[in-house]
Amino acid sequence: MKTDLDFSKLGGLITAVIQDHETGRVLMVGFMNEEAFQKTVESGFATFYSRSRNKLWLKGETSGHRLVVKEISTDCDKDALLIRVEALGPGVCHEGYQSCFFRRLNQGAWVESEERAYDPAEVYSK
Amino acid sequence: MKTDLDFSKLGGLITAVIQDHETGRVLMVGFMNEEAFQKTVESGFATFYSRSRNKLWLKGETSGHRLVVKEISTDCDKDALLIRVEALGPGVCHEGYQSCFFRRLNQGAWVESEERAYDPAEVYSK
Repeated sequence: MKTDLDFSKLGGLITAVIQDHETGRVLMVGFMNEEAFQKTVESGFATFYSRSRNKLWLKGETSGHRLVVKEISTDCDKDALLIRVEALGPGVCHEGYQSCFFRRLNQGAWVESEERAYDPAEVYSK
Repeated sequence: MKTDLDFSKLGGLITAVIQDHETGRVLMVGFMNEEAFQKTVESGFATFYSRSRNKLWLKGETSGHRLVVKEISTDCDKDALLIRVEALGPGVCHEGYQSCFFRRLNQGAWVESEERAYDPAEVYSK
């Protein structure tokens, strides 16, 4: 498949916004290179490029909290993706929250706005 | 205000996901530098850093389609923002669509999945 996406603006990467397909909640933002995008499309599981580890990263590889792809959209400039998913498991965030966006700006400070959905120590020590 | 965000991973920029505060629709993805973020918080209107024009960009400056900030969240790594907004005007996308994410992947091809909400030639020629 020809991806027809613009990976040039972020040095080979494209922003991927992950949204729950039922609730509409934005769960996380990751980055994909062309290979990660291809893997995502072929496998049906969201696969990112980890900038810290410099390698492909199948989300949920360790935790089991995979993201099942339901719909993929791109934007006007074809330099960002919106991926609607079914999130397996209680939470997407490696810190134990349902969404990585668990901190809200309140009077100039970031405040945790929800409880943890699972204990990350338990999940990641398995 | 001390922003306490990590602008280092994208050379001074942070990803900002813009979501309709009522419908939950993801409308666009932009980038902010620290100054754009400060302006966004102070003014209450989403302000980005334009990578193509290398300057701050008050969304809606030309079209009038401003984004009124309702809520700002950040993620676990504090390197992405989720901004829930009230979008003024019929559409956020400069190509005339309600959302920039108007193309959906269908059998390996990007297909327009909605009608235009306004005529961009009319709005941007004023």
